Amino acid sequence: MKNMDVHPAKEPVIYVVEPYGGSVRKHMPTLPLIYWDDAGVTRGDGVFESLLVRGGKAANLERHGKRFRDSAKAMDLPEPPLEKWEEATRLAIADFCRGDDDVEAKCTWTYTRGRASTGHPTAWVVVQPIAPKVLEQRKKGVSVMTTPRLWQVAEELPAKTLNYAATMATLRLAREKGCEDVIFTDGDSGLVLEGATSTVISVKGKKLRTPAGPGILPGTTQAAVFDYAQEQGYRCKAKEMTVDDLKSADSVWLVSSVRVAARVTSLDGKKFKAPDNAKEIQDLFAAALSR
Amino acid sequence: MKNMDVHPAKEPVIYVVEPYGGSVRKHMPTLPLIYWDDAGVTRGDGVFESLLVRGGKAANLERHGKRFRDSAKAMDLPEPPLEKWEEATRLAIADFCRGDDDVEAKCTWTYTRGRASTGHPTAWVVVQPIAPKVLEQRKKGVSVMTTPRLWQVAEELPAKTLNYAATMATLRLAREKGCEDVIFTDGDSGLVLEGATSTVISVKGKKLRTPAGPGILPGTTQAAVFDYAQEQGYRCKAKEMTVDDLKSADSVWLVSSVRVAARVTSLDGKKFKAPDNAKEIQDLFAAALSR
Repeated sequence: MKNMDVHPAKEPVIYVVEPYGGSVRKHMPTLPLIYWDDAGVTRGDGVFESLLVRGGKAANLERHGKRFRDSAKAMDLPEPPLEKWEEATRLAIADFCRGDDDVEAKCTWTYTRGRASTGHPTAWVVVQPIAPKVLEQRKKGVSVMTTPRLWQVAEELPAKTLNYAATMATLRLAREKGCEDVIFTDGDSGLVLEGATSTVISVKGKKLRTPAGPGILPGTTQAAVFDYAQEQGYRCKAKEMTVDDLKSADSVWLVSSVRVAARVTSLDGKKFKAPDNAKEIQDLFAAALSR
Repeated sequence: MKNMDVHPAKEPVIYVVEPYGGSVRKHMPTLPLIYWDDAGVTRGDGVFESLLVRGGKAANLERHGKRFRDSAKAMDLPEPPLEKWEEATRLAIADFCRGDDDVEAKCTWTYTRGRASTGHPTAWVVVQPIAPKVLEQRKKGVSVMTTPRLWQVAEELPAKTLNYAATMATLRLAREKGCEDVIFTDGDSGLVLEGATSTVISVKGKKLRTPAGPGILPGTTQAAVFDYAQEQGYRCKAKEMTVDDLKSADSVWLVSSVRVAARVTSLDGKKFKAPDNAKEIQDLFAAALSR
């Protein structure tokens, strides 16, 4: 319920988590946090999760927690005490939203191998405003180009690591070509993999499809959508997909935690008109994350 | 010349570099340096160089500077003002070595896309002691296993980025199997690529070979070695190499800036005896970096 007397914070809120399950404590965002010898920055040696804050809580929390634990395990990091991460998340959300349940925000969990000089992991939670660009893409959709991906991190290391330099470089190239996002394809087979930071879902009638195969990080939003949509009478399936499969769908969506869903408005130059059921699909995605 | 009245620092020395060429300033290593929203830690979005400090200066400085500039360019980072990086390096070396030219150290340049909230890159230089393990491997060599690499970052993005999570995971696996290092091979062709953080050089008589091909980051140490060895009457060549080519060499070396050269003492279980000219080759590598 909206309390008109309060205003959500505009500044990010940070809580540092003790990696083995001790206390959590607030950290000023205006002060540096990470040391020069942290493997998170020297090697990108760490994992993260991005969560949507909606209705005063983190959406889809259980799936994010599970993937976070799985990522840590794949990286041989100590098992994170999820109850402490959740405590830090609750505190940060409360500080950020200040009782205004209508405010949306982005929450990030980061967990690195820590300082070379101490050997202890570094762990923190941030809650911050969602970038205006992201909110705009939710409403207006995104123009997308496909591009073969020459690395297969998810196959090699099934973890959501901090290693996004090549992905960011690909996005910069896409933007130079006038596209707002990319869909990666497998370099050998040409099969569809995933978005730069999202999972692909195509809709055709009452059928939802997402690409199956190695080299695809399991999507928490896609999983929540499929679970809910199935109950609502949609037929949902992960299967191998070609770019032509996408082009022949009624609509194609890039789903991810914070942006939720951005409709693909053009794919390699082919325009997608907004389908008649665009609102229905968007409501479906939103409802799937509100349980 | 060794001054017996001085002692090199044991603590790391850090100089922060203003990314556009302003001042450099010392930063206490006991204080955090990097902010929560630095792309270096949130995305691994940055580049680095590791340099050997020997004889009171950074070895092979020109090649490192060139590769650093090339990496920044490949990542669309503003061109780094190399004279400022070199100034910070000189100051940090002077603070660390305190006039003792016999001390060796490791120098690291790190340059990230910087804070999301400011849009300015983050840049710093560290000089620190060389890890005892590294010095030991210089002397005793390393046992190595080959492993196919399923990502090809150097081909996709020819930059020395901060994205080493998958490489570090591979090294952990190798250590579990009793090996100290790995040599990556191409997943399709089986051809030899490079070490985890080093370039491969094989020696047979007066011939030095290093693997050629895409997916290999240009090695600054290998380049210095080939330049110098050529002058000394060795025949040096980059060519496609198989694992069997390595196994039939007199000796195989992993060369990199700080470890300089570690002889491969076993490769996938095949033992390599120290060759008669081991000392000659080591002196060759050392001399190549002392010019």
